[in-house]
Amino acid sequence: MDIFDNINPLDFRYYGRSKKIFDNLNPYFSEKAMIAYMCKVESSLTRVLANRGVCSKAIADEVEQACKKVTADEVYEEEDRIKHNIRALANKIREKVSKQAKPFVHFTTTSHDIINTAESARLKDATLNVVVPFTIELEKTLIDLAKREKDTLQIGRTHGQHAEPITFGFGIAEYVSRLGEAILEIKKAGENLRGKIAGAVGAYNASSLFFKDPEEFEKEVLAEMGLKPGGHSTQIVEPEYELKLVHSIVSAFGILANLADDMRHLQRSEIAEVGEEFEKDQVGSSTMPHKRNPINFENVKSMWKAMMPRITTVYLDQISEHQRDLSNSASSRFVPEIITAFVASVNRMNNVMGKLVVDNENLKKNFDKNADMIIAEPLYILLAAYDHPDAHEHVRKLTLESQKTGKPLTELVFDDKSLKSYLDKFTDDQLDVLKNPKKYTGVAAKKTEKICRKWGIELEI
Amino acid sequence: MDIFDNINPLDFRYYGRSKKIFDNLNPYFSEKAMIAYMCKVESSLTRVLANRGVCSKAIADEVEQACKKVTADEVYEEEDRIKHNIRALANKIREKVSKQAKPFVHFTTTSHDIINTAESARLKDATLNVVVPFTIELEKTLIDLAKREKDTLQIGRTHGQHAEPITFGFGIAEYVSRLGEAILEIKKAGENLRGKIAGAVGAYNASSLFFKDPEEFEKEVLAEMGLKPGGHSTQIVEPEYELKLVHSIVSAFGILANLADDMRHLQRSEIAEVGEEFEKDQVGSSTMPHKRNPINFENVKSMWKAMMPRITTVYLDQISEHQRDLSNSASSRFVPEIITAFVASVNRMNNVMGKLVVDNENLKKNFDKNADMIIAEPLYILLAAYDHPDAHEHVRKLTLESQKTGKPLTELVFDDKSLKSYLDKFTDDQLDVLKNPKKYTGVAAKKTEKICRKWGIELEI
Amino acid sequence: MDIFDNINPLDFRYYGRSKKIFDNLNPYFSEKAMIAYMCKVESSLTRVLANRGVCSKAIADEVEQACKKVTADEVYEEEDRIKHNIRALANKIREKVSKQAKPFVHFTTTSHDIINTAESARLKDATLNVVVPFTIELEKTLIDLAKREKDTLQIGRTHGQHAEPITFGFGIAEYVSRLGEAILEIKKAGENLRGKIAGAVGAYNASSLFFKDPEEFEKEVLAEMGLKPGGHSTQIVEPEYELKLVHSIVSAFGILANLADDMRHLQRSEIAEVGEEFEKDQVGSSTMPHKRNPINFENVKSMWKAMMPRITTVYLDQISEHQRDLSNSASSRFVPEIITAFVASVNRMNNVMGKLVVDNENLKKNFDKNADMIIAEPLYILLAAYDHPDAHEHVRKLTLESQKTGKPLTELVFDDKSLKSYLDKFTDDQLDVLKNPKKYTGVAAKKTEKICRKWGIELEI
Amino acid sequence: MDIFDNINPLDFRYYGRSKKIFDNLNPYFSEKAMIAYMCKVESSLTRVLANRGVCSKAIADEVEQACKKVTADEVYEEEDRIKHNIRALANKIREKVSKQAKPFVHFTTTSHDIINTAESARLKDATLNVVVPFTIELEKTLIDLAKREKDTLQIGRTHGQHAEPITFGFGIAEYVSRLGEAILEIKKAGENLRGKIAGAVGAYNASSLFFKDPEEFEKEVLAEMGLKPGGHSTQIVEPEYELKLVHSIVSAFGILANLADDMRHLQRSEIAEVGEEFEKDQVGSSTMPHKRNPINFENVKSMWKAMMPRITTVYLDQISEHQRDLSNSASSRFVPEIITAFVASVNRMNNVMGKLVVDNENLKKNFDKNADMIIAEPLYILLAAYDHPDAHEHVRKLTLESQKTGKPLTELVFDDKSLKSYLDKFTDDQLDVLKNPKKYTGVAAKKTEKICRKWGIELEI
Repeated sequence: MDIFDNINPLDFRYYGRSKKIFDNLNPYFSEKAMIAYMCKVESSLTRVLANRGVCSKAIADEVEQACKKVTADEVYEEEDRIKHNIRALANKIREKVSKQAKPFVHFTTTSHDIINTAESARLKDATLNVVVPFTIELEKTLIDLAKREKDTLQIGRTHGQHAEPITFGFGIAEYVSRLGEAILEIKKAGENLRGKIAGAVGAYNASSLFFKDPEEFEKEVLAEMGLKPGGHSTQIVEPEYELKLVHSIVSAFGILANLADDMRHLQRSEIAEVGEEFEKDQVGSSTMPHKRNPINFENVKSMWKAMMPRITTVYLDQISEHQRDLSNSASSRFVPEIITAFVASVNRMNNVMGKLVVDNENLKKNFDKNADMIIAEPLYILLAAYDHPDAHEHVRKLTLESQKTGKPLTELVFDDKSLKSYLDKFTDDQLDVLKNPKKYTGVAAKKTEKICRKWGIELEI
Repeated sequence: MDIFDNINPLDFRYYGRSKKIFDNLNPYFSEKAMIAYMCKVESSLTRVLANRGVCSKAIADEVEQACKKVTADEVYEEEDRIKHNIRALANKIREKVSKQAKPFVHFTTTSHDIINTAESARLKDATLNVVVPFTIELEKTLIDLAKREKDTLQIGRTHGQHAEPITFGFGIAEYVSRLGEAILEIKKAGENLRGKIAGAVGAYNASSLFFKDPEEFEKEVLAEMGLKPGGHSTQIVEPEYELKLVHSIVSAFGILANLADDMRHLQRSEIAEVGEEFEKDQVGSSTMPHKRNPINFENVKSMWKAMMPRITTVYLDQISEHQRDLSNSASSRFVPEIITAFVASVNRMNNVMGKLVVDNENLKKNFDKNADMIIAEPLYILLAAYDHPDAHEHVRKLTLESQKTGKPLTELVFDDKSLKSYLDKFTDDQLDVLKNPKKYTGVAAKKTEKICRKWGIELEI
Repeated sequence: MDIFDNINPLDFRYYGRSKKIFDNLNPYFSEKAMIAYMCKVESSLTRVLANRGVCSKAIADEVEQACKKVTADEVYEEEDRIKHNIRALANKIREKVSKQAKPFVHFTTTSHDIINTAESARLKDATLNVVVPFTIELEKTLIDLAKREKDTLQIGRTHGQHAEPITFGFGIAEYVSRLGEAILEIKKAGENLRGKIAGAVGAYNASSLFFKDPEEFEKEVLAEMGLKPGGHSTQIVEPEYELKLVHSIVSAFGILANLADDMRHLQRSEIAEVGEEFEKDQVGSSTMPHKRNPINFENVKSMWKAMMPRITTVYLDQISEHQRDLSNSASSRFVPEIITAFVASVNRMNNVMGKLVVDNENLKKNFDKNADMIIAEPLYILLAAYDHPDAHEHVRKLTLESQKTGKPLTELVFDDKSLKSYLDKFTDDQLDVLKNPKKYTGVAAKKTEKICRKWGIELEI
Repeated sequence: MDIFDNINPLDFRYYGRSKKIFDNLNPYFSEKAMIAYMCKVESSLTRVLANRGVCSKAIADEVEQACKKVTADEVYEEEDRIKHNIRALANKIREKVSKQAKPFVHFTTTSHDIINTAESARLKDATLNVVVPFTIELEKTLIDLAKREKDTLQIGRTHGQHAEPITFGFGIAEYVSRLGEAILEIKKAGENLRGKIAGAVGAYNASSLFFKDPEEFEKEVLAEMGLKPGGHSTQIVEPEYELKLVHSIVSAFGILANLADDMRHLQRSEIAEVGEEFEKDQVGSSTMPHKRNPINFENVKSMWKAMMPRITTVYLDQISEHQRDLSNSASSRFVPEIITAFVASVNRMNNVMGKLVVDNENLKKNFDKNADMIIAEPLYILLAAYDHPDAHEHVRKLTLESQKTGKPLTELVFDDKSLKSYLDKFTDDQLDVLKNPKKYTGVAAKKTEKICRKWGIELEI
């Protein structure tokens, strides 16, 4: 099949044609990879049988070799014939081994022992080998940016309105902190995925025929895959382990989307405090050649919109009747896309944020626009602290007057005789802030440093 | 790329490997198809320029030929270079035409004139040429089944409990009716998709430079694509037209899922009133060879779980700032999957329902289980109608007695002296029902016929 | 219960304390209203029995009077006792009528004949009496605003970047058009809600005992409630009718949210093209008295975020096993909240948009910021039309030069000798646009007028 | 307002009229409670000022007393006047204190310092004081049931088909295990909620004017509320802490819904292995008095359908522009409903499961239905283990023969001469299972015990 015969945009565009994303995730998330993981479970099973003396080590070696040779093509062809994917897989392994080895392939297991264990193993590996390292890369980029810009004055905005001063680095430190926590959550959820070798209804019915300690046997097989068993499996592992991983990814994706939105808005023509770097031949718009569109930030937001609602499917898949109905079979196959889209977005964000253009001139220009008004807050607070009976209302009226007359608020304040007795009590530092709103940044720079230090250590960056 | 390198289950499994689904949808929903549709918009544009005498007919012919030759590969390569997909497309068309023709390629249009129009056109064509006919096929199958089984007695179930009698055909007629309405909705929504040739912000800024009647010009181009313009476009067509199509599909999908659930439960071991037909070599379970699992019904339910939540993305994409932000760009590319999964599920359902095994013996056995109790309802209603002061309560107590003593309710009723004066007033038909609950099916058979007739005519089946 | 003992924000804040919203919706959406509607169904039922001569007109009158006296309190108390809400309702009606009338209360019906019919009737009435008129009020406000500002120049924005000129009225006309279509959809969906009097499993089992034409009987009862029957009911009406209403509301809500977002962003400190009017005593921020926050636009966006995802519940409720499981019972009770929140948001939007402050000075200032660059688009298009071989690229380079050197683009254009031969071919109108970007608004004003006229007529405003 | 004037079903039905739920949650989740919590934050703030010597202890006492007297009514009235809820709250506190105390009310804080801290505190308290104990109650009930029924034979079901044997207790142990994990997650998420006293943009701008260590000051205030600060607040605490709590609740709700579905289906007329206990006066159906409907299980499923999709709102609320937009203000007010509905469902489930009727006769009858076929699995596995070259296929054919001829599979097996050499190698235990499928329950009973023991200890039940 030609790549452009695909209908899924990850396959034909964001994953299939992005060498970095493809090379990193293909070992886990292609259908080929899934079949390879299932073969690895089958191979681990026979290995443990050999360890326990149920079959010879030679047989385990033989099965291991056979498992490595199984191809997706042949398994799918066999499935076309017999309409059962795991029986097809087992048939293809058995075909490749000696008569003696055949009985020890798929020994005592049910299909979902293989599928569920393979799925957990590949999700775990992809999480620890790709998702976490990629996200740490982005975290590192954000830490560098936050540290570099920790003293860069920026007007803080609430409701889209100028509020109180922060620094640009402090704004980025928000994401260092949120993403740092998110990485820990993802890692923990990935490490906590579980497998099962507990048979068709989870009671170890078949394995009990051969082993006195079927739960120990399960542990040994899963250990080969780097997994532990769930607390109580039916035909399937409890869905909450995987759900928690998906939640941790979707929650982290929301943080990315928030960052993307912040940057998109800071790139607006009227604000223009940041910009995506443009490549030499890049075309901004097919008809408006002067435009510099935040296409990468838009893409990240868009991917989040495409993926976030899909967690609803995973919540729906929590429900499986009795020892299992199969109504999660097709739906669960779409889960890796959520992770792939997240990785692609993390990677894109890392590229853009690493080359983010921060426009100091516009930062200053925007800050100055309302610099005078900014002191309204400290003013009212200080007045109140020094016993002014109606500080908030008094200041509000002064700001209205300032807007009406065009006179600077500072001027009005120091001209206002009714305030004199209060202003006299202000400390020098407090008066300083009133006279220079740029100093009114609280502990923005210090906290930025602290957060960057903390996450650098925590994530060993 | 190998098909099994894909990560999307439609691409590697349900669409890419299903000849019927692939052959039918590939002309609309592959990335190749999207590029072909965009070329067709570009070609229509030049055609209208020729019709209006802006360029020669020869130029329009030349552009049309060039558009047919453009390949997805070359467009994507060009996009890699210049980072703009429509500019890339236009470049590739221009490359293939004479110097004279070049200016008339993409003339006065913005990227989204091309993209949005192509998207609407392919969605419309796929809806009318594939979605609707496939669903009508299923409707036909259901009509045949409902008519065939219109007199087959079945116990109706509410709360999973035996309630009052229906017929199996009447139960299917529910889906004939719901799906019939759904088909009309899908068709209407498909026909109502819109395009636009209104420029970068929707005000026909560029086309107004050349035409006194830019809205007429737009209409003419869209007519070539079988589309009409939206009521007010910005850079994009109003999102509600496509949203309505997606809603109509998702709503129809819910009906499929409900039918699948009904059948799944009727196939339970203890109920066993229906069964999916098994193929000769089919394996039911890798470890339990005797099982006959409702895998197709489960698959349809599962696909619905995977797709239904995605409409949330389309609702999110209603919001686009000012004359447009691009945050719907990636997300909207996933929409065709919803339709593809629906078509695949309709097709699967058609196959299974067409060969559905209806087990008359079990239908009878299940009915008989509570046949006696079924008369509780008509009894209490008739008693009430004939002025019994406390009919409901009286009957309730009789049913408890029947359960306790094991005596048939009918017997208890005719033995109950306090009821005699009421029973004497019953008509023969009414007494008949009390004595034979099988007659208590209301107008089930007649309504089944009526519904089947109605939808046969409405959909010209 | 005290209003502030409630936990639902509609009950304690947005509905319960808003006189206008409460007074308008209380007759439909309180629990009291639901019980009144169910009584009305019971009363209609007996009325039709009288019309058909099954009981006397006096009995129908008696039942009607009794139904009007039933209170929510007594029904709930009775339900506490017998654990069945409709049986409780029937008991309370019967209590209030003569011995002769009792049998004709709830005659042949099942609980859901009453519940479902009442629900459809109140949703229909609320839609036609409140939702549609309120939304038409907002539409009227938007039409007035669009007409008033149809010539007010505004820079169009895509990707948050200055693009091509529109007018402020044209931007509002987008919402006139989208909301207009939405109103028609809501109205149609409201009018199309259905009831049922078809008994416990939808086969008219009980009513068939008394009537030869039970479907006609159903029609007559429903006609009393202003409803028609569904195509095929089970114990319940097909869920798609109500789902479609919810979709039409949620889709319209998305349009409101988009408008709210547009306004929020236009109110940003740096853009400031519009503002919510502030009341005299209103406090903008508890610590920043100078701020003017777009709290109403934020509220509308927030309500949409709270309500939109709830349609997923309605999609889930499409699935009901066999002739019905009751798993939609609690969930469907939440549907009126979606409509209430929509009405409250429409009302809020109407208030704010009716008093919207449009800041002409800032509109002009923002427009002028990139006025010079705006001509890039018409320039490149015109050059291309007049056979320039590489118009887009040539213009792109000129814009970069303009940005670098600070020279106006127009100047660079007319100084560029390589362009002279092309410029000579331009018409006067075309040259005009190059020299004055304010003229480059296409048909913005004309289309605004046209849209306002259309919707004024269509909605009889 | 009358309770039945409410439109929210929790307010008028499931919470407002359920004494147990109301009494437990009202101290946290009514609007009254929210205002009380906000007062407590204001009071804690002044307390810390006194601890630090900024004001006198007498002033802190005065403010504390005033805070206790503030009513929801007066705050709402004041908000009606000034359109700002926290300013209204502060006004009402200040009104109640001396002139000396006024300045120390709301000192240096922004509205959201109060709101966010109060919200986190009440969510934390409700989680630890209500959600967790209620859920532990249910867990205890399930443990008792699982232990009691650990040896009760039940046929395990996959795909709704009879599969391999388990015990009824083992089926319940699944939920002991899943719910146990869920409780730990909820508890952890509740304990990890955070507050903030960091000012309008999170940089401690105002508090820095008075304290050298504003982060320490924040910690001290939050400690009074039993909270810790977030890693980096803007105007608001990072949304991920609360999101995680909601996820943990929704995930636990999915487990309840699964259990409810399992029980619903086991209560089907044809299966009837369990039943909800009916009260003496309870009416099952208004027209079918013999029915025993699983209304509580249906209610729990329904509540889950109503609440689960709402987490999408919380994911949407992760995005807040820059230092905050207010578009999460209305939407976040709905969060307590999710928790309330969960608590109500847990309580309902506890009541039903505590009195669950387990029908041993039907369990046995259902088991026996396919008892003979059950041995197909161990047979094929054992044959394969003892080197039969085609065990699965051979057994599959025998089962088909058994179905066709009606002969017991066991009989066919021991009559099949081709199998003799293999059967001779079977151990006695293995032969036992073949002869008596009831013994084929693996470690079901043992694992049930183990799980119950584990969770009893873990949760100190």
